[in-house]
Amino acid sequence: MCSAYSERWGVCVWFTGLSGAGKSVTARALTELLNKRGREVTLLDGDVVRAHLSKGLGFSKVDRDANILRIGFVASEVVRHGGIAVCAAISPYRATRGEALRMVGADRFVEVFVNTPLGVCEQRDVKGLYSMARRGEIKNFTGINDPYEPPMNPSIELETEVLSIEENAQRIMEYLEGQGFVCAAAS
Amino acid sequence: MCSAYSERWGVCVWFTGLSGAGKSVTARALTELLNKRGREVTLLDGDVVRAHLSKGLGFSKVDRDANILRIGFVASEVVRHGGIAVCAAISPYRATRGEALRMVGADRFVEVFVNTPLGVCEQRDVKGLYSMARRGEIKNFTGINDPYEPPMNPSIELETEVLSIEENAQRIMEYLEGQGFVCAAAS
Repeated sequence: MCSAYSERWGVCVWFTGLSGAGKSVTARALTELLNKRGREVTLLDGDVVRAHLSKGLGFSKVDRDANILRIGFVASEVVRHGGIAVCAAISPYRATRGEALRMVGADRFVEVFVNTPLGVCEQRDVKGLYSMARRGEIKNFTGINDPYEPPMNPSIELETEVLSIEENAQRIMEYLEGQGFVCAAAS
Repeated sequence: MCSAYSERWGVCVWFTGLSGAGKSVTARALTELLNKRGREVTLLDGDVVRAHLSKGLGFSKVDRDANILRIGFVASEVVRHGGIAVCAAISPYRATRGEALRMVGADRFVEVFVNTPLGVCEQRDVKGLYSMARRGEIKNFTGINDPYEPPMNPSIELETEVLSIEENAQRIMEYLEGQGFVCAAAS
């Protein structure tokens, strides 16, 4: 199933979920696992994207969509060259995630739903954004005053309350191995 | 010199020159030649970049620099995965081109100076932009009321008055073959 040939196929691992759900930390843990297997990864999470692609974009629907399509464009180019793109943005709208999938190609797109409930994300409130949104200091905040549309049929669904970051990253690795995108570690 | 191994090294071909110099047409001709050799290419010229990366950016120095660094970021990721990035933006400022070179890596960066004189570009005026700039309808237009800093030491310098688009694209192919980035066509 897995060979040097299939390893030259690219793949896009697309995380979606609420702010604070654990997308970025899981994406970074996955990137480390892939690097340990000798695979190059383009990580496109909030920090990277703000620095390199989307400075100046805000949180309106138009700007959010522009941001997601920009990430989708870069991911599709990486995948076309046989690389691995790991994308971690809230990407709240189903239709826009569908656009990203179409850009990359459905057979190269792995959708990972980080299904941490709103209550848990809000309680963690790592960046203090939920309390700002509740006080009305942030408009269009996903889950509070802007919708989050969960995936209908994600490739993988993660529950971050039950499993650790490392366990979740490992689950994705096993999925990628099962699909032949990554060769299993030599035993 | 050339092998399947070296072909897995990526490379960035970075065109620079005035508006109307012939960057984009030459970049597209080069892309076709590379595709004919079975190589995947990410083409980042004005049209692609405006559509996918930089909608909303203008022509101030800050916006121009943001645009160039965004192209540099995508090119560097493509090259890291062993792909070929062909970039064609005016990229008027030497320091910003230097930033792009640093992002990609100097040993993977081929700078192509499309050295068509201002007078010739202005006479062609394919998009009517020079006459608009002369009438003061466009601010910060490179060559008219914004500087163009030519490369000090480009990898390749093209003169579009003497050679055709195809001949220039062929010259770049020969350079890429000579450097081992592309295997010579089987004879």
